[in-house]
Amino acid sequence: MYSTQDDTSIEALERILTGAAAAADPWAAEPATTRATVLRTVAKHLDAQADVLVALGMKETALPEARLRGELVRTTFQLRLFAEVLDDGSYQDVRIDTADARWPMGAPRPDLRRVLEPVGPVLVFAASNFPFAFSGAGGDTAAALAAGCPVILKAHPGHPELSAATAGIIQDALSDLGAPAGLYSVVFGVEAGRAALTDPRVCAGSFTGSIAAGRALFDLANARATPIPFFAEMGSVNPSFVTRAAARARGADIAAAFFASLTASAGQLCTKPGVLVVPEEMLDHLRTQTPPAPSPLLNAGIQKGYTDSLRALASHDGVTFLLDGGSAFADPPEATLLTTTVDAVLRDPSLLAERFGPAGLVVTYRDEDDLVRLARSLDGQLTASLHGEDDDDLRDLTRELAKRAGRVLWNQWPTGVSVTYAQQHGGPYPATTHAGSTSVGTAAILRFLRPVAYQGFPQSRLPEVLRDDAPHPGYRMINGKPVSA
Amino acid sequence: MYSTQDDTSIEALERILTGAAAAADPWAAEPATTRATVLRTVAKHLDAQADVLVALGMKETALPEARLRGELVRTTFQLRLFAEVLDDGSYQDVRIDTADARWPMGAPRPDLRRVLEPVGPVLVFAASNFPFAFSGAGGDTAAALAAGCPVILKAHPGHPELSAATAGIIQDALSDLGAPAGLYSVVFGVEAGRAALTDPRVCAGSFTGSIAAGRALFDLANARATPIPFFAEMGSVNPSFVTRAAARARGADIAAAFFASLTASAGQLCTKPGVLVVPEEMLDHLRTQTPPAPSPLLNAGIQKGYTDSLRALASHDGVTFLLDGGSAFADPPEATLLTTTVDAVLRDPSLLAERFGPAGLVVTYRDEDDLVRLARSLDGQLTASLHGEDDDDLRDLTRELAKRAGRVLWNQWPTGVSVTYAQQHGGPYPATTHAGSTSVGTAAILRFLRPVAYQGFPQSRLPEVLRDDAPHPGYRMINGKPVSA
Repeated sequence: MYSTQDDTSIEALERILTGAAAAADPWAAEPATTRATVLRTVAKHLDAQADVLVALGMKETALPEARLRGELVRTTFQLRLFAEVLDDGSYQDVRIDTADARWPMGAPRPDLRRVLEPVGPVLVFAASNFPFAFSGAGGDTAAALAAGCPVILKAHPGHPELSAATAGIIQDALSDLGAPAGLYSVVFGVEAGRAALTDPRVCAGSFTGSIAAGRALFDLANARATPIPFFAEMGSVNPSFVTRAAARARGADIAAAFFASLTASAGQLCTKPGVLVVPEEMLDHLRTQTPPAPSPLLNAGIQKGYTDSLRALASHDGVTFLLDGGSAFADPPEATLLTTTVDAVLRDPSLLAERFGPAGLVVTYRDEDDLVRLARSLDGQLTASLHGEDDDDLRDLTRELAKRAGRVLWNQWPTGVSVTYAQQHGGPYPATTHAGSTSVGTAAILRFLRPVAYQGFPQSRLPEVLRDDAPHPGYRMINGKPVSA
Repeated sequence: MYSTQDDTSIEALERILTGAAAAADPWAAEPATTRATVLRTVAKHLDAQADVLVALGMKETALPEARLRGELVRTTFQLRLFAEVLDDGSYQDVRIDTADARWPMGAPRPDLRRVLEPVGPVLVFAASNFPFAFSGAGGDTAAALAAGCPVILKAHPGHPELSAATAGIIQDALSDLGAPAGLYSVVFGVEAGRAALTDPRVCAGSFTGSIAAGRALFDLANARATPIPFFAEMGSVNPSFVTRAAARARGADIAAAFFASLTASAGQLCTKPGVLVVPEEMLDHLRTQTPPAPSPLLNAGIQKGYTDSLRALASHDGVTFLLDGGSAFADPPEATLLTTTVDAVLRDPSLLAERFGPAGLVVTYRDEDDLVRLARSLDGQLTASLHGEDDDDLRDLTRELAKRAGRVLWNQWPTGVSVTYAQQHGGPYPATTHAGSTSVGTAAILRFLRPVAYQGFPQSRLPEVLRDDAPHPGYRMINGKPVSA
């Protein structure tokens, strides 16, 4: 169906864009419950092809089977969770104001009914490190289809065959169900991605990857004659802070759990706890960690980027290896730890740059008051973690971290992002380009919706969900009052 | 307090930015109900000074007294409506997931609690045409203060004394209540505005004005090392479509109501119905409208921009004056109408550019099927209106308009934007830079909030609203289920 050897041609891209634009109206017009059925069917078809998909993933990404199988479970669960969101309907944020002649702003209030509607075709740039959960059938695809938007998936060059196979399964499922042709397509190649992003028919974009690539695409989206929202998830070191009391009470356990989280998926997770802030006495627990057997990184570009960034860090005055660094630069690299001090980081915040691979920087402090100073120097983060004991007063530190991260954790580690209703996977720049948005969890559907208010409309001309006698979504606001079904 | 003769100096701006940054934490930490009290008190103080404020407005803007008094009523109502939003608390979109060991994504679900938190200091660029409602104490100021964000108001050069007086009243009220110093400030001058917008301490911006100025500021906000959301409300012609049946049944009434809406505030409203699409037989009703007594436009720049744009339109082949154009170029200008055809507009969509002042373009059609074609050629709009009769089938036209406008009206006119819970004052570019946002109505508070999730936190360390025993906001989501209080 898709040739994975070649980049998408200009002609093929034109057909894909035309198809996506043509699919927008009919897909948006489907009742939410119909879109829910489609998402569940896509999930079922993907699960049925798990063996084929996981084998392709193993071949293309060097990720181990258990990790890929788990990721596919998460991915199809995610599709089903968005189906549940559609069945409930609360996501539409329905607000109904009935006419009020005595409205106290000085003029009568008209009948006004507001609902979130789909934005149109969405371009999703797939990630290298999650060939299922942030790629073909991943979170943004699920959120966009749920919202009522066609999807154009820009395949990651790290897993083209898997992208094509995933697309084939999705398209077959959609076709069986009679969904509009053009609802889901895949494009290959940098130029096709850029051309699609600047095409007027594309109404929003999303991305997961490096700061450099994400910022370049964000700039492109903003520079359009008609700018579009572009949700890029980029870099994060996910700092974890350990109090002196916690180190004393649980130092060995904290060190082991940190090292396990750090080295999961060979350190190639956006939520890897790349920076650990500890009292000096924790170093003994950390330098005794045993690296797992080295795993190949996702691709040669990531291997080179990782060793280059590690070399730069290791060459810095005041940074030393905490684990033996002999095999840290090998291919595949052995997991390693380096260490420096709070003072060194405050002098040179670039020490806290993301390094995508199995390395962590341990930052030591002598004075616990330095923790708040360090927190204030942080860039935006996806996550920040606190490890403390009952008596620790961490109000200031918690507040400073909450100002800089999308998710703050207490005595837990940030990897293994749960797909839930309350999840927030996002954060201030450069963690993402839209701190107000999430790429994981059911609130991700809001990325691809925009409000429309209908004023003075007769019941029969309103979108069904806004009518008085429509089945009520789980939540609506009526004349300013929240009403749950 | 503020000298209105001079632009804000670099040194003064630095003090203002430092003050705003210092006010952010204490203001965010106030309970929402305390912020509500502050907003109500500010409203009361403004109302008490209505005579002084209206007199300044009349002196600086050439707007008539009744209009300014009505606008001030609307403005203080708006402050009180946001106080109500704070008391209810639903705006925080609290989502609580309790821990679930059997969560079906393949791993246990942690306890996750998500809440919207303030983004930090907000820079508000005031509008020329609403010296109260979109200026010093206007919608974005109210929304930002309600959200928990300090405000830096960039005064519009069209009403500097009023901006200074409004600021004085707000600051006195805040000071009496013990609110943090630096919570609300005003800056004057283009350079001070640009410097503030590019300062790292400013976390979001908003603007109401022309496409050229709005786009320039949007580009500046995006080009920062750390880009920030910039909500610019810019141009809109608010097209209104009249079916043949409606023209036949109510042509004279529609023409009169259109002309009243067009000429309100001398056509200087962002929701002015600048384009009316009618069957040819409506022209007789339109050419008999009597212009109101000419009113001076807001300032010399707007007068010049208006006559230049009108001259360009009138010189276009296929555009003719429908009302006598003799006084249309005078200062003050007499309201006027020009006319052209659907075909001419489809050939040259620039005919539908916004002209800020008392002129309207009447576009005639012969074939009702042309209405959908015309709708498809429209840029993004704040509003679009339909005037039809019971038997008109306008499903396609309604859908095309809803795709391009933030608000769609049935047999009503778009001026007089009501401040309500369901209002949507926004729309696709170039109407605004953020189609997902509104600048009027209670949903405007969402501009200045971003989600933070707390994972695994003990009850006592959570923000109060996320605790099990906290007073419940009007609406929360618990384990995916909407719950109203």
